[in-house]
This record gives sequence, C-alpha cells and structure tokens, in this order.
Amino acid sequence: MVADADRVHEDRLATEEPLEIRVAWPGTPARRLSVTMRTPGHDFELAAGFLAAERVIETAGDLHTVAYCTDNTLSREEEFNVVTAELTRPPRHDPAERFSGTGAGSACGVCGKQSIDDVLSCGHDADQGSARRWEGFSVPWDVAVSLPDRLREAQRVFARTGGLHAAGLFEADGTAVVVREDIGRHNTVDKVVGARLLAGEHPGLPLLCVSGRIGFELVQKAVNAGVAVIVAVGAPSSLAVQLAQRAGLCVVGFARDRRCVVYAEPERVRR
Amino acid sequence: MVADADRVHEDRLATEEPLEIRVAWPGTPARRLSVTMRTPGHDFELAAGFLAAERVIETAGDLHTVAYCTDNTLSREEEFNVVTAELTRPPRHDPAERFSGTGAGSACGVCGKQSIDDVLSCGHDADQGSARRWEGFSVPWDVAVSLPDRLREAQRVFARTGGLHAAGLFEADGTAVVVREDIGRHNTVDKVVGARLLAGEHPGLPLLCVSGRIGFELVQKAVNAGVAVIVAVGAPSSLAVQLAQRAGLCVVGFARDRRCVVYAEPERVRR
Repeated sequence: MVADADRVHEDRLATEEPLEIRVAWPGTPARRLSVTMRTPGHDFELAAGFLAAERVIETAGDLHTVAYCTDNTLSREEEFNVVTAELTRPPRHDPAERFSGTGAGSACGVCGKQSIDDVLSCGHDADQGSARRWEGFSVPWDVAVSLPDRLREAQRVFARTGGLHAAGLFEADGTAVVVREDIGRHNTVDKVVGARLLAGEHPGLPLLCVSGRIGFELVQKAVNAGVAVIVAVGAPSSLAVQLAQRAGLCVVGFARDRRCVVYAEPERVRR
Repeated sequence: MVADADRVHEDRLATEEPLEIRVAWPGTPARRLSVTMRTPGHDFELAAGFLAAERVIETAGDLHTVAYCTDNTLSREEEFNVVTAELTRPPRHDPAERFSGTGAGSACGVCGKQSIDDVLSCGHDADQGSARRWEGFSVPWDVAVSLPDRLREAQRVFARTGGLHAAGLFEADGTAVVVREDIGRHNTVDKVVGARLLAGEHPGLPLLCVSGRIGFELVQKAVNAGVAVIVAVGAPSSLAVQLAQRAGLCVVGFARDRRCVVYAEPERVRR
C-alpha cells in the first residue's frame, strides 16, 4: 500500500477526520453549525476558537460547556467526531443565518470592502480592536523574524509527518504560550484561541505566528482574537492587508533568514 | 503602509476577493450555493469545477451557461464577484441540503469511513471511477517526480507574489494541459477541472499535480474528476490515502529532488 523504494511508513501520515460542531443555548436544542476536516486532538479548543472567530461567543463566559456528544444515534467512532458547545446565553446574531448559505436572495455585499466591513462591524466593540488594545505596543524586529523558527521548535510532530500546519501565541519577548497543530491552517488558529478561552484567559496575546500564508480569514481570526501582530513565513493577500490596515493589526510576511516585510502598522515592529 | 527596509511593493501581493456561486435550473430561480475567497480570474472555470466536485453537475452537458450576475441590486464592484450557473436539468441531489449545514438533527455519519462512503456512493457511477477508467495505466517514475517542477515552470506569477497555490492537469508524458493558480489550494483544482469542462473535454486526464499537501478534499476532487494519479511536494493525510485506496486513485507524495513516496496504487508508478 505504501512504497518508498522498499520502506513502508504509513504510520507517519497526519491523521484527518471530520469534526461536527453543534451549538445550543438556553431554550434552544443543539444544532449542527459546521463540519470541518481536522487532525483529532484539542477538539474542545477547536470548537471554542471556531465559535469565537465566528462571533457566536464573545468571551469565555459565554461558554457553559463543551463536550463530545453521547447521542445514542452515534456510533462509537462518530462520538469523538461530534462536539456540542452549550452557551450561557443566546448569541447576539443567530449563527444559523450566517451558515445556511441560502436565505437572502441578493448578494448582500460580496466584495472585499463589504467583507472587511462585516468583520469590523461585528468584531470591534469594547476592547476587541487591535488598534485600541495595543496602543503604543511594539515588538523588536529580532523577535518578530524569529517567530517561525520558534514555532517550528515547538512542533515536535512536524518533522515526523511533514504534513501539519501550526499556529502559536507568543509573549512580546518571543516566549511561546500556546502552540497547536492541525492539518488545516485555519484550525490551528482556532485551537490556540480556544485554548486560551477554555483556560479562562483573553486570547489576545501580543504575537500570533502561523505557518504558511496569511489570507483574509486568518487576519479575521487574528483581529477577532485581539492580537497585535501576525507573523508568517508566507505572503499575505491583498484583502488580508486591507483588513489589517483597517483594524490596526500589524502584518509581518516573508519572515525568514532574519528578514521580513511589514505590511500594516509598521511602527509596531521596532528596529 | 508597506515597508521592507525602504522599499514599497504592495503591488506584488496576491489578490483575494470573495466569489459567490449561484445555481439555477429549469423552473427554479438562482440561489446562493457558496461564497469562497479566491484570486479573481477564471471565475467561470472555478464555478464549473466547484459544481463538478460537489456532484451538482456530472458532465459538461449539465451546464447551460455560466455568467456574472447583472442584478441591479449589485454594485459595480460586486458584479464580478457573483457568478450564476444555469443547469440544463435539476441536479440528482438538491445541493441546498448539502450546503445548509443545519437540517438533520443527527450526525448522519461524521467519521472518516462515512466521509469516504459518501464520496464513493455519489461519485462512482459509469466511467468516473479512477480504477475502472485507468485499468492498466502507469506513469514513468521520472515523469511523476518531475511534475512539481513542471507545475512551477508553468506558474509565471508564482515567483512574483510568492503567495499562490497551483494545480495542473498533465498528459502521461508530463506535458502540461492546463495549469491554474489561486490563493486557495482547493480552488486551483476546481479551476483546472472547470477549464476542461467548459472546453467540452473530460476532466479526467491521467496526471494531476498540486502544490502543498494532499488532504481528503483534494483526493475527493481528484476522484470525482476521474484522474489516475495525484502528485504533490507535500504529504497526504491518513484519510486522503484511505479514500484513494478505496477509489483506485494513485497518490504520490513528497515528490522532490527526484524522490517520492507512493501511498496508493503503487503499480501505477513505473520504475
């Protein structure tokens, strides 16, 4: 089945399984919100981070419990692929509308500018805005460019499978606080944000480092989490930079070989 | 805004914009099926390939037209971000059920085995199966390991932005037939498949090469397109390999420096 000249090493493959996230709140039974392919492990964190990224929850206090489902309609194998989050109160916006895909007949804003407005309109109340939260903050250049290496150091499994993405939240001096891996790039950020939330901590640490590129949705997650700087080895997209500029998030791309390119809020990276 | 020492080069960023895909068929008005972030360009191909991957269409004959929307509710900027596909007949399965996310209260099969069964049950009629379609086919090892380089050669824009993924369909001798780029990995495969469909050709060429890793959904797209071999520089996931084994698709991972690892259907790669 697996042939590399004469060796067999299927056990080195990264595991991928679907995870269904269900949500319930007082007076409303659990319903399916999303199914995502993920690397099993830290599933409650993934669910909590996903709900935060989608603004279904706003603080850790909005989460009552997160647990695997024990429906008797589920097979043993499925039980650990279905997670239900019970909220302490109804979400401000009904998530069903957001996730149904159908509903509104008109496009209701299918352009980059509108995508940015959507994130900013529902994400920027109180202390969530990167700009307000991090006024006056800056990170030394050396620390910023070192984050991808620090992230890789923290990934023990990486070299073994070669197939896992990672994200990490770091203190201003480059100390790793939480690092998570997943086969899906977006899941890694949900997992680190969820880890903070489930620990009762604010997810908005100063530095977030991701493997791969920086697309719009990763900046959206970083803005909603309230971090100051997002760093990656790869390039950001045009729309990612536009959102970051509007939200006051610093974007550092191409961080490798002691070099990088700063795309937004350059005063946050200190020479 | 953009600072790399003293240079400014925002124009080198890969463009990212949302694309809404709507679908209509005789007697049924257009409705939103999906919104995906993509690099603009080849939008009709992206829509056609997406519909094929999701089994909303089965052959090019199921597509009547693909066009940008001209709703007068859309702004000028939005017009080129909304594509409507008109089908010649209703799809076999109503896509709304698949995309609503809500609906069924139970999990209805949230495990890897069920995910594989779902792909095989709706994707493997007639000539679509990789195993049946490619009985006796094999590709020389040299050609297989050369595909990532050939893909990169075909990507003129790649070196300029550093942020774009690519996919290409190749003949058995390694000749590139169609290569497309996108900021989203999955979009690249939809675009090459859609390009073939819109040209009235079968998307199932012998070789598909993708940048990055090989996850479950990429194998799903490859199986539905009917290719014989999928090749990548990166690693496949466990579930991707399981699906490939069931569907008779050959998976070649870690194709670099004249080496590779064959994970399924090894007899399709000829020493």
